[in-house]
Amino acid sequence: MEIEVKADGRRARGDESRALVLHEAVNLASVVGLHGLTFGSLALRTGRSKAGIQILFSNKEKLQLETVAFARGMFADAVIRPALSTQRGLPRLKKLFGNWIRYATEPLFEGGCFMVANLAEIDSLRGPLHDALFADHASWISVLAGEIRFAVEAQEILDTDPEVAAFAVDAILCATNTSVRAGDANAIARARRALDIFLVPVGV
Amino acid sequence: MEIEVKADGRRARGDESRALVLHEAVNLASVVGLHGLTFGSLALRTGRSKAGIQILFSNKEKLQLETVAFARGMFADAVIRPALSTQRGLPRLKKLFGNWIRYATEPLFEGGCFMVANLAEIDSLRGPLHDALFADHASWISVLAGEIRFAVEAQEILDTDPEVAAFAVDAILCATNTSVRAGDANAIARARRALDIFLVPVGV
Repeated sequence: MEIEVKADGRRARGDESRALVLHEAVNLASVVGLHGLTFGSLALRTGRSKAGIQILFSNKEKLQLETVAFARGMFADAVIRPALSTQRGLPRLKKLFGNWIRYATEPLFEGGCFMVANLAEIDSLRGPLHDALFADHASWISVLAGEIRFAVEAQEILDTDPEVAAFAVDAILCATNTSVRAGDANAIARARRALDIFLVPVGV
Repeated sequence: MEIEVKADGRRARGDESRALVLHEAVNLASVVGLHGLTFGSLALRTGRSKAGIQILFSNKEKLQLETVAFARGMFADAVIRPALSTQRGLPRLKKLFGNWIRYATEPLFEGGCFMVANLAEIDSLRGPLHDALFADHASWISVLAGEIRFAVEAQEILDTDPEVAAFAVDAILCATNTSVRAGDANAIARARRALDIFLVPVGV
């Protein structure tokens, strides 16, 4: 019993350390990219020992994969989950866009959108890291496509191919993230107008 | 006279070396980003001495700036100039898209689009490198906006804000470059359909 309590206590401390390190890893990777993640730089940023961090994550690829998973959770908490209580279709799409714009302008991650910072770097590689990142990207686009399909079927917006429109919406959001980071004061207004081209309400 | 000839010969050889090194620099930066450019890696790739390359470019920032300028020239030669003999407006836009798609699928640069590989990396920085890269990006978007404006005024396509539409078209092209690099077989077909949403011919 005593031993079990101790083991649980160690596990709880381990989970806390892991979350703290992963939070820093996501921030660092949003700035320098997943390739720039090193045990040494994480030790510097968290004040923990490099050896301790290495024990938590075994090797760089595992650290990168856990970082991608942690970023996915943060993105879902900030952008997707707060929209799930909003009515499906056009209202939820608008809520998702609003959440996304807040996510890009009050950045959740130090370097802005984690996905944008890493997709172009990872695109030419093959392997588990590429697969995890592109699966997350595809899953976000399918969330958008699902709501666009719903909005078309409910005749809230003019007929459009949901997959193509979702791809274009994400492309516009990604480019907007880059414009925001580059200090373009017009970035958000332009993004809203560009999104409007894709989502034309019926009867307008 | 003899001295002048010698000097010209040296300059010609210098220009040739510079172009050869810059060609490799553009390729390398399209894969690892402008920050990954080092005199050492360029020496390895060109078989030239590191010291010789350092003499040509003085310092890393000058090398990066010349690399951006060289990439701009290559992009203009591959995508923009071959479209200038095509009629302005919708025909020239279609020619530009075709040239861009060839540029993304038969990549001119080893790592795909030079701009996409570097914009997200450079966006948060400030200074001459950021300014040069974002000026080139803005200049490409204004080429697109100019043709869209022409097409709207000639009533070839339905009325649209040329700046917003050009921004969205570039966003779609950038996202398509990433999809192509990631091995998405559907990337080009989807891009063409997404571009069609923006450029609706009058009377369709």
